Amino acid sequence: MERLEHAIGRIRPLDEEAMAKARDRLDRLTKPPGSLGRLEELAVRLAGMSGSFPLPGRLARKAIVVMAGDHGVCEEGVSAFPQEVTPQMVRNFLAGGAVVNVLAGQAGADVVCVDMGMKADVRHERLRVCKVKNGTDNMTKGPAMSREEAVRSVEAGIAVAEELAQAGYGVLATGEMGIGNTTPSAAMLAVFAGADAEETVGRGTGVDDAGLARKRDAVRRAIAANRPDGGDALDVLAKVGGLEIAGLAGLAIGAAASGVPLVIDGFISTVAALAACRLAPGVKHYLIASHLSDEKGHRLALELIGLSPMLHLSMRLGEGTGAALAMPLIDAAKAVTERMATFESAGVSRA
Amino acid sequence: MERLEHAIGRIRPLDEEAMAKARDRLDRLTKPPGSLGRLEELAVRLAGMSGSFPLPGRLARKAIVVMAGDHGVCEEGVSAFPQEVTPQMVRNFLAGGAVVNVLAGQAGADVVCVDMGMKADVRHERLRVCKVKNGTDNMTKGPAMSREEAVRSVEAGIAVAEELAQAGYGVLATGEMGIGNTTPSAAMLAVFAGADAEETVGRGTGVDDAGLARKRDAVRRAIAANRPDGGDALDVLAKVGGLEIAGLAGLAIGAAASGVPLVIDGFISTVAALAACRLAPGVKHYLIASHLSDEKGHRLALELIGLSPMLHLSMRLGEGTGAALAMPLIDAAKAVTERMATFESAGVSRA
Repeated sequence: MERLEHAIGRIRPLDEEAMAKARDRLDRLTKPPGSLGRLEELAVRLAGMSGSFPLPGRLARKAIVVMAGDHGVCEEGVSAFPQEVTPQMVRNFLAGGAVVNVLAGQAGADVVCVDMGMKADVRHERLRVCKVKNGTDNMTKGPAMSREEAVRSVEAGIAVAEELAQAGYGVLATGEMGIGNTTPSAAMLAVFAGADAEETVGRGTGVDDAGLARKRDAVRRAIAANRPDGGDALDVLAKVGGLEIAGLAGLAIGAAASGVPLVIDGFISTVAALAACRLAPGVKHYLIASHLSDEKGHRLALELIGLSPMLHLSMRLGEGTGAALAMPLIDAAKAVTERMATFESAGVSRA
Repeated sequence: MERLEHAIGRIRPLDEEAMAKARDRLDRLTKPPGSLGRLEELAVRLAGMSGSFPLPGRLARKAIVVMAGDHGVCEEGVSAFPQEVTPQMVRNFLAGGAVVNVLAGQAGADVVCVDMGMKADVRHERLRVCKVKNGTDNMTKGPAMSREEAVRSVEAGIAVAEELAQAGYGVLATGEMGIGNTTPSAAMLAVFAGADAEETVGRGTGVDDAGLARKRDAVRRAIAANRPDGGDALDVLAKVGGLEIAGLAGLAIGAAASGVPLVIDGFISTVAALAACRLAPGVKHYLIASHLSDEKGHRLALELIGLSPMLHLSMRLGEGTGAALAMPLIDAAKAVTERMATFESAGVSRA
């Protein structure tokens, strides 16, 4: 718990002075005040997170952290894809052939793969192995993991974020791969929101009606069997979560502790970020919501954190793909603060 | 009318064979089928517009066409900014200091400025002058322009699109600058939608409540004075439109006639695109909606065309800024079709 508590203690509020400087600059540029809407808000928040304005050059160095794990709950028939796809896709990420690789390339971001709990032991020089065990347990039959395993997974995520921040990355993003992982995410969301599985379970990678019914049933049974305490995020992560979800929650805490903006992807990433916010409310200020996915519970999860997504593309893929698509908006927000004329310099009359 | 009729006659339906090829490719890539949502739909539509798959390299050559014009209706006190700002901002575009320049630069797009009807005669080697007169007339006191002037402005827009397409641009986008131009746009939308000014008039660059009331009143008086025929888009453009709005409608027709995708920006650009669709319904297939702006009538205008915006950033600037921000999504859609592994090549199991 020491690393977790230390990281939480390091999370600072947004830097008001840097934000005021950003606002002042934006108001002097040749555009109606506030007319860039959320792009201006993003620029101001980036100043607050970075603690400096002009915005630092390190915002150009970006990494999408894709955390992988397997899920015992797949035994309940909750996914359209077989579990062997988790390591297959991780190899695909490492070979550069997945959507996240292509979109990260477009965004100028690196893809960092982390094994947080795959059943199989994949070996690859660029795969970071941080797993505390081989696969999350079937939560319908007991806790997904022990509380200690949850803490260790969260702390592993914190360590990844802190190392990447130290290596000079100025923007991090979450992504994940784990056949079955929308099911624990839906269970966690149901607990955090005090909502029924009806409101939080979606079709994931594309289950049919029968599969959807099995997912809802699995979520209800997991909650009934484990009785997670919605006021204790570690309890929720341990009982109905997943190893890579805990890792992503840690990543969010570690990014916030390092003063690094974290772009969150879709449903699973957002539920992980929600867990992080429950552990440390200050995390919220360092989160940037990328897109609204088609997965059922995503909107609710974003609302619980208090975030509004920028892209509406009806995606439902995960991997960090939506986060990658949002990264050019960060570059755009920064560029606006740096390269525009002011009313004075351009000789444009004000309102 | 000959150029207009000729252009309308050249608009082809989307190429079904190219779209089928794109769909087939997308379904073999390592992702759940359809999981990229509207990004996949965009890739398929780009194939249909271009008439080829793999997608052509010319999609990388992009131009944002910023059409400028002044509005006599400014006499009614409808804008927060003085009219002199139109040429001042055009000079700012030409000098590279406005938001659209910065965001176009980020997107790898060129900015093409066209004087469609500024009051002042700005001279600059990179400003195209296509105006049929110096400023749109005050529509509360008579028609904004004659029908012949509307046709000539539309045809000037068609010519710009056709020339840019011939010069090798594979993606065009609309942008505009014209102090007061949300007022005629709101009037046109009210006529096309059969709606009251209440539903179509917004705050533009930021008028206060009194200014908003004056705008609504101006729109109502303009419609009452001119009685535009909602079934005749040229009549609407002439009576309650604007020179640069007619030019943008022409740009949309010319892009569609040339098989070039057109990314539409905010409220004014969308109303212009709506007018183009009323003149030639086939234009719709070549339109890509970029963002949902904060300007009151934008959602309604998009709905009337049947488009759904990808970005939700609460912007209300115009210039083509939202269109610029959406351009990386076109690059991303194309990249996905070109650079991903298939299930077979990556050895990933299917659902």
